[in-house]
Amino acid sequence: MSDLLWPGDTRAAGLCTDEAVLTALLHVESAWLAALHHHGLTASSSASPHPAVPGSGPPHLAPDLSDLVDSRDLADLARDAEEGGNPVIPLVKLLKKRADVGNIHAGLTSQDVLDTGLVLVLRDAAARIREDLATQIEALAALADRHRGTDMVARTLTQHAIPTTFGLKVTGWLQGVLDARDALAAQDLPIQIGGAAGSLAAPTALAGSPAKARELVATTAATLGLPMREPWHTSRAPLTRFADALVTCTDAWGKIANDVLVGARPEIGELREGRGGGSSAMPNKQNPVLSVLIRRAALAAPPLAATLHIAAADAVDERPDGSWHVEWATLRTLARRTVVAGSQTADLLTGLRADPVRMASTLAEARPGIDAEQRRYGPSDRPYLGATDEIIDAVLARAAEKPC
Amino acid sequence: MSDLLWPGDTRAAGLCTDEAVLTALLHVESAWLAALHHHGLTASSSASPHPAVPGSGPPHLAPDLSDLVDSRDLADLARDAEEGGNPVIPLVKLLKKRADVGNIHAGLTSQDVLDTGLVLVLRDAAARIREDLATQIEALAALADRHRGTDMVARTLTQHAIPTTFGLKVTGWLQGVLDARDALAAQDLPIQIGGAAGSLAAPTALAGSPAKARELVATTAATLGLPMREPWHTSRAPLTRFADALVTCTDAWGKIANDVLVGARPEIGELREGRGGGSSAMPNKQNPVLSVLIRRAALAAPPLAATLHIAAADAVDERPDGSWHVEWATLRTLARRTVVAGSQTADLLTGLRADPVRMASTLAEARPGIDAEQRRYGPSDRPYLGATDEIIDAVLARAAEKPC
Amino acid sequence: MSDLLWPGDTRAAGLCTDEAVLTALLHVESAWLAALHHHGLTASSSASPHPAVPGSGPPHLAPDLSDLVDSRDLADLARDAEEGGNPVIPLVKLLKKRADVGNIHAGLTSQDVLDTGLVLVLRDAAARIREDLATQIEALAALADRHRGTDMVARTLTQHAIPTTFGLKVTGWLQGVLDARDALAAQDLPIQIGGAAGSLAAPTALAGSPAKARELVATTAATLGLPMREPWHTSRAPLTRFADALVTCTDAWGKIANDVLVGARPEIGELREGRGGGSSAMPNKQNPVLSVLIRRAALAAPPLAATLHIAAADAVDERPDGSWHVEWATLRTLARRTVVAGSQTADLLTGLRADPVRMASTLAEARPGIDAEQRRYGPSDRPYLGATDEIIDAVLARAAEKPC
Amino acid sequence: MSDLLWPGDTRAAGLCTDEAVLTALLHVESAWLAALHHHGLTASSSASPHPAVPGSGPPHLAPDLSDLVDSRDLADLARDAEEGGNPVIPLVKLLKKRADVGNIHAGLTSQDVLDTGLVLVLRDAAARIREDLATQIEALAALADRHRGTDMVARTLTQHAIPTTFGLKVTGWLQGVLDARDALAAQDLPIQIGGAAGSLAAPTALAGSPAKARELVATTAATLGLPMREPWHTSRAPLTRFADALVTCTDAWGKIANDVLVGARPEIGELREGRGGGSSAMPNKQNPVLSVLIRRAALAAPPLAATLHIAAADAVDERPDGSWHVEWATLRTLARRTVVAGSQTADLLTGLRADPVRMASTLAEARPGIDAEQRRYGPSDRPYLGATDEIIDAVLARAAEKPC
Repeated sequence: MSDLLWPGDTRAAGLCTDEAVLTALLHVESAWLAALHHHGLTASSSASPHPAVPGSGPPHLAPDLSDLVDSRDLADLARDAEEGGNPVIPLVKLLKKRADVGNIHAGLTSQDVLDTGLVLVLRDAAARIREDLATQIEALAALADRHRGTDMVARTLTQHAIPTTFGLKVTGWLQGVLDARDALAAQDLPIQIGGAAGSLAAPTALAGSPAKARELVATTAATLGLPMREPWHTSRAPLTRFADALVTCTDAWGKIANDVLVGARPEIGELREGRGGGSSAMPNKQNPVLSVLIRRAALAAPPLAATLHIAAADAVDERPDGSWHVEWATLRTLARRTVVAGSQTADLLTGLRADPVRMASTLAEARPGIDAEQRRYGPSDRPYLGATDEIIDAVLARAAEKPC
Repeated sequence: MSDLLWPGDTRAAGLCTDEAVLTALLHVESAWLAALHHHGLTASSSASPHPAVPGSGPPHLAPDLSDLVDSRDLADLARDAEEGGNPVIPLVKLLKKRADVGNIHAGLTSQDVLDTGLVLVLRDAAARIREDLATQIEALAALADRHRGTDMVARTLTQHAIPTTFGLKVTGWLQGVLDARDALAAQDLPIQIGGAAGSLAAPTALAGSPAKARELVATTAATLGLPMREPWHTSRAPLTRFADALVTCTDAWGKIANDVLVGARPEIGELREGRGGGSSAMPNKQNPVLSVLIRRAALAAPPLAATLHIAAADAVDERPDGSWHVEWATLRTLARRTVVAGSQTADLLTGLRADPVRMASTLAEARPGIDAEQRRYGPSDRPYLGATDEIIDAVLARAAEKPC
Repeated sequence: MSDLLWPGDTRAAGLCTDEAVLTALLHVESAWLAALHHHGLTASSSASPHPAVPGSGPPHLAPDLSDLVDSRDLADLARDAEEGGNPVIPLVKLLKKRADVGNIHAGLTSQDVLDTGLVLVLRDAAARIREDLATQIEALAALADRHRGTDMVARTLTQHAIPTTFGLKVTGWLQGVLDARDALAAQDLPIQIGGAAGSLAAPTALAGSPAKARELVATTAATLGLPMREPWHTSRAPLTRFADALVTCTDAWGKIANDVLVGARPEIGELREGRGGGSSAMPNKQNPVLSVLIRRAALAAPPLAATLHIAAADAVDERPDGSWHVEWATLRTLARRTVVAGSQTADLLTGLRADPVRMASTLAEARPGIDAEQRRYGPSDRPYLGATDEIIDAVLARAAEKPC
Repeated sequence: MSDLLWPGDTRAAGLCTDEAVLTALLHVESAWLAALHHHGLTASSSASPHPAVPGSGPPHLAPDLSDLVDSRDLADLARDAEEGGNPVIPLVKLLKKRADVGNIHAGLTSQDVLDTGLVLVLRDAAARIREDLATQIEALAALADRHRGTDMVARTLTQHAIPTTFGLKVTGWLQGVLDARDALAAQDLPIQIGGAAGSLAAPTALAGSPAKARELVATTAATLGLPMREPWHTSRAPLTRFADALVTCTDAWGKIANDVLVGARPEIGELREGRGGGSSAMPNKQNPVLSVLIRRAALAAPPLAATLHIAAADAVDERPDGSWHVEWATLRTLARRTVVAGSQTADLLTGLRADPVRMASTLAEARPGIDAEQRRYGPSDRPYLGATDEIIDAVLARAAEKPC
């Protein structure tokens, strides 16, 4: 996967690609098959019309399906996905054709496999995002602490307002990133297995009782490392809440990028990216490219999350007629772009260069006007900085409170 | 406030209206003034250039500002809000003109008052939504339990899939509403006081120390019943997360409305609203009006939340140049409409009429085709319902777990 | 109508208010009734079950319904709108109760009246927007021409790129506004009359033939000054295209506001609003408030248009179950805000102050780096301005080409 | 390019892929180089610092650059695009390295090439969409005409309203598609060449005069078959209007899909797709998969167009700091999905099967209630169909009026 039109996309490497989705779908089918075997529901079981599979080993040793289909099959799977409306249908056909084992996909519905597969690729993306959040938080905490005494102008509605410190500005950024951390930490994408109507009907028939059907789900969840949840085919908050958390990330990063873009304007010159990007026409320029690309992602993310909410709100029946289908590519795109922006923000923050001299000179030039509020409320020894230290301390404490 | 073009709007009564916002802004100014008085920072304090106010009583007895400005002033305030870009500026002017007391708004910035005032009106809206969520959950739990044995067809991609029960369908609705409950419960809209640059500079100068400035904020928060938080002028997750929670509500309600709308189609006839709406041209019709209006709200909400995320992502400086301003009306509209839809959904669910006979006859007609999966996995005594009871129990337990 | 949370809202005065909508609905009902009378379809006609109306004059003199209901009825109408899901139903009830005439609303459906009424208020809003577009174009054309020789730096990705002129920058703004003008000019909001199913069934029965029914529509359209169109109850492009045109306006204005906001930063200082807004805390500040408020509108508009498109895409049946209902308030809000932003942009542009000296000094400081491209391609006498004059001429010619 | 998560994506074949974008970028560079040669501006020109290219032939015979870079370079280009923020920068580097000719990209800026390249791939997508619109219009016109006498119930707010004909319903669909046709026909995506600041500075220096620079642009436009337009680097209506037109298409198709989905419900049974999709779990089902997938696209499109409008509204300077960059992938995705949905809608309509018997029986069952309006306004011989024939004729005439 390469995306010529989303520079930086390669940072996301294999996350959420078609290959990753295929692998995840295969994991789900394999884990379910293993659970069936583990519970003795091999193809020779009386519960199944499939013939016994000679040589398939003891019941608890289910064959791994992962090697049976690979990226060479993607073009065919993508093409054949249209007929039934989703890629699981042709995948199952292919698996049944190639596997020397019964009970593949037995008791499942396409949505079980696709939703749980998506959850797996989203979980990988989230893990990557958490790493980058940790890097960002470390960098921000260090910047905030180091620049407690770096005085600069605060700007409101684009105008010089009162003095502040760069440390406090960074603390505002940090607060946004901590909100993103907490929003993402609150997500715990669950397994989705419910059968055709979310009633575990087929698994129950297959396993012999509701309790055993639920054990199958629990075993599969354990194999995949996913939390349990009652079937959620049409109550989509697990996905919309996850998407909201991703947008909470890009919101926080967008704010940082915007401030860097303002600070990097030559007339302001307070901030500079560690490395600037060039220009095809103007060799003199050093563009704040990371910030530009982060900002881009932050503008694109909210409408994608809105699409997921519209899909959730438009759901109907036991499986919706289109609003389910619109989720997949939307989530993949949103997750992948969030990964890219998270990585870029980590780089931006670890490389960011502040210019305290320039900050000081702008503040000096803004005087005495910028001290109007100060003069009104009383004198102080130093530029009028209020509780900046206490606020920084409080937010640093919050940063240290828990991991990403 | 009446909105001819949003039928049902009157359900929200005075919530989030201009009057409510004005009252909230006055509460914030009053609470702050009381905190100043409580901490001895009357206008005669050396920290203030304002003259002492004769007859303003002992320091801890700050005058209540709420009566000084009322709805008769709204038109003027709305008109004058444009000059400085927000309504707090003319409000403070008016208060200073009418109040026989100094230190009004001392140390605050417009955003402190507007953000905290918005938080107050949103809190009221949220309280109302929680009440309706509780009603919904009670109604849904009763419906789910009562209809455990009401067999019907499950539909996927609009087509008959397998048998299910109406109890399980309702359980899916309940799960969505519980997700909404939990999303809203996770919100704890905080106070916002930070002064012009979020540094508590003026409050610190006024109070004499950062610690005392923070005490002022704490006292004000206690008066208003709001949790504390470091200034969040430009890290807007408290608002975007709240908006996301509201949309999680409308998503859940939209799903319910969609199912009722399908079930109310004459050819299906499985569900009926307690009372139907009429038609200007066709006296024969009974329209499922509540569902129609709920669905409307569910379609409109996600783009409003996206606007708030875009605003958050587009923030810059210590107070943004437009993306702050776009939040106010967007939040108000979103909150008010969510209140309306929540009330309508409570009515819809308490009045909803299911027709088990019709459900059964549709299921009977769908046979034997609809039993294809069942035949494949094995016989059972009754329509093939899997773990519906266990799933219903689990979700009912979750419903009972905590209040709204 | 006053909106405390949308500063500047009062500029839109009575446009698209509940009062305006009520007046428009009454116009539609009156025009239809007049058409019935004009074509001899008084209540005594055999086509109607209504009794003759004594004293209602000759058939072509239909009574004007406009005085029968007024703003004092709005609260009741808004409340009663919920029962049937739209405000036309209670309005018609009220009219029938108060009017001493038969055949009110005869042959119409609620959507005929509401859609056509909305078209009328939108037309008024569009007329107002066109006036402001004309003012803007005049101001922009004058600025572009006056500043042909005002050299300044061009900025790309926030960095100094090459020299340009302020005249060319303004020409870019003008081009956007001309695109908006053309987009709006292409809109011709039509009448909507089709009866319950868009088939003109009831009007045909009433009038005696399809041809006569269509004459009724044509007469009504002529009275209201609206173009004809076959019923479009569920093909909503007339509204979505109109909304897109409004957003094309706010897009163009947003770009201008953004440039003014950058130019008004103290460190850049090239542009200044004619009058700046104050601050509640910082008496020293002059905020570029118009630009801030315009930018706000530009951020909020696209998601509103998206809501209309989602509604159009989600339409079903002969009248949709919610996606029709979501259009009304969305359109009203979008139109009203566009009016406000258009007026603010007209003010911004007529008052805008450029500082050629500051522009020149920034350009001088940017040298020699900013001339890198110039040195590469060859010398020229003057800052390296290419075809700016020709481009300005071409866009000015386009501006003069047609009226708004 | 294959997209496992957007079933049907393969219908768009090579349109708008990375390969297609690369080819388009190469066409732009080649056409510009040819224009330079055509106007005698070979590398040996005094206007250029590049050395003469021995063996590059007569000036008007510029080498074709298209073969110098191909899909094998895509991964590298995608990776290297991040450094400068766009893929043109590494592409130009590669071309200069591989081409035995001077003046490659001379006078251009990245945005010239990328915008014009995007325009080329969008034009191809639009051509394909127009073909499918033509197919749809033909199919719809035939259906409307054939089913003039096919009576059925009209449904409003999901309930039976009055009788109508299937011919009229289809005519409503046709009207939406004609609106889409007209919206798309109004688009004329232009060339974008303006150099670094949209002033044609470098081309003017290179060519010797503004007039000659503009000739270079005109020659290039002629080569590429694109209309002229003054540089529009920051006035983005050409792209947003195009996106709006695409969404006008998906809106129209979404309405059709929704009606088919309702009509295909087993309880209604009036419509059926030519071929239905299967299910992984339920062999009995025939899902209306095309409609499901079309509906999916219609839900996803409006937020993508909103992203483009937000980008346009958020533009700043002579090249924006992120809002330009967000357009590329958004447009590509929107265009490609519109192509897919257009093709699916063409298939849906050419294969659609109506069941007049079922329509008639539903109408019969809905009697006498459904005739309430009819009884009110007077008798007629046949189900009460008003001006359906005249409306169908009018819309068919509009369909025949002009090509797609």
